[in-house]
Amino acid sequence: MSGGPDREAPPRSAVVRQGIVKIRDHRASECHDHLAVEEPLEIRLGGRSLSVTMRTPGEDEELVAGFLFSEGIITGADDLDVIARYRGPDGDAARGNVINVLLKGDLRVAKERLRRNFIASSSCGLCGKAMIDALRSTHAPVEADVAVPIERFHHLASVMGQAQATFEKTGGLHAAALFDTDGRLIVVREDIGRHNAVDKVIGHMMLARETPLDRHILMVSGRASFEILQKALAARIPVLAAVSAPSSMAVQTARAGNMTLVGFLRGGGFNIYAGAHRVTRGVSELV
Amino acid sequence: MSGGPDREAPPRSAVVRQGIVKIRDHRASECHDHLAVEEPLEIRLGGRSLSVTMRTPGEDEELVAGFLFSEGIITGADDLDVIARYRGPDGDAARGNVINVLLKGDLRVAKERLRRNFIASSSCGLCGKAMIDALRSTHAPVEADVAVPIERFHHLASVMGQAQATFEKTGGLHAAALFDTDGRLIVVREDIGRHNAVDKVIGHMMLARETPLDRHILMVSGRASFEILQKALAARIPVLAAVSAPSSMAVQTARAGNMTLVGFLRGGGFNIYAGAHRVTRGVSELV
Repeated sequence: MSGGPDREAPPRSAVVRQGIVKIRDHRASECHDHLAVEEPLEIRLGGRSLSVTMRTPGEDEELVAGFLFSEGIITGADDLDVIARYRGPDGDAARGNVINVLLKGDLRVAKERLRRNFIASSSCGLCGKAMIDALRSTHAPVEADVAVPIERFHHLASVMGQAQATFEKTGGLHAAALFDTDGRLIVVREDIGRHNAVDKVIGHMMLARETPLDRHILMVSGRASFEILQKALAARIPVLAAVSAPSSMAVQTARAGNMTLVGFLRGGGFNIYAGAHRVTRGVSELV
Repeated sequence: MSGGPDREAPPRSAVVRQGIVKIRDHRASECHDHLAVEEPLEIRLGGRSLSVTMRTPGEDEELVAGFLFSEGIITGADDLDVIARYRGPDGDAARGNVINVLLKGDLRVAKERLRRNFIASSSCGLCGKAMIDALRSTHAPVEADVAVPIERFHHLASVMGQAQATFEKTGGLHAAALFDTDGRLIVVREDIGRHNAVDKVIGHMMLARETPLDRHILMVSGRASFEILQKALAARIPVLAAVSAPSSMAVQTARAGNMTLVGFLRGGGFNIYAGAHRVTRGVSELV
């Protein structure tokens, strides 16, 4: 497209260079800036369109695997037969924005799960409480009795900051990072969509047959919404930390799911919104 | 729900108080924090479920009107008959999280528009360029020849900051503010969902029969994604300013739609990603 970013596909990149006009102190100058790439990904199940998500290209197979898993359509890597990019005949489909999934078992089972989820989320139009109850009926509360010392949370934030390669450049991507309870970084993923970054992390672990993630800590770069907590609960992650604020329903979901939810994890400290018993050093008695 | 926020509905609020544990300098203390409320809203068309969105309660009618308008399902307030809250018999539905819409004209016309949009967004699974082309075929590029001086952008940012009541409290809400080209604030809305805040602003203006918004500037508190540009284009808004980064597809959409897109609008300056000819004071010659 004329006027569009001067980029040729493939290879795909999470970042694109773009000519812009910069205004500083009322003076204008032409220069280049880096933008986070945003493109649609269509997920097909047995050749039929299931969902279109706006995502940052990269680790698409992980994204699809994580999405199917965290949405409850598959229960693990054993349900997957093939995750393959659909390459259409023309230039557009050739760009690789379509992923087709074949399942090992009966497609009807997946479709039944999908239907049940759909009913759950429709009935949830009524009330956040009903939505959390529905989630609860699918996923039991997490039971992992991991303990995370206060100082480890600060360590997580600094490690994730270092690992976040693209954010620095574009200021436009969300990151999700998975740690073990000793604070070792296992995988970090970035995406224009907060939930996509989480799906990529979960999909990565599921494809490596490392789920459930019940000895792990998930950290996200932005806010913690209901959707993020839902995905973490599906993967059995006991501790979730966010750089920014949680929503009311994120807190309710964490409490219903016996998860530990930490927010505003920044320089000077953090807040514990749920499950403070897993945060050690005298805090465990407080909530 | 036990353990949940101590809140009774109604009246609804965008903010809820919540007991938390605060960690500062390795010391824990119990206190209260304010959270942005997140709850599902189900939109029904003629009694049938159309969409469920996670939103911050408040101005729900505006949200629904703006959503129907910016998604191309209605073309203006004249298409609307009734936007009414559905009050079910039990406690959940009584919470008011369901809005039912009746249209004046033939429901089939709306459904046909919906179907066409669905096809467009499905075919767009193939490629971002196809998605922008489809958007282009629905909405001509904006033609408004408004001019906005550099210093006015800084003014917008400071006015929106003052008007953003809830953000200060929770750190968890997105805001969208509409200004006229003289920099006068017309309406500001906050929501946990970036796109919902924009839908509320557009819906507010549509219900007041003030659309198209072709002499206006829209400012958003966070990033500018494809979805935001799409909604602004549907409302014919010529100038969009964001506090944070735009995505690659936001820039492409702005350029295809002849819109002015400003990003990183903060203290010392801003960047112009598209349509610099509308930014006056010597900048117009640069792009």
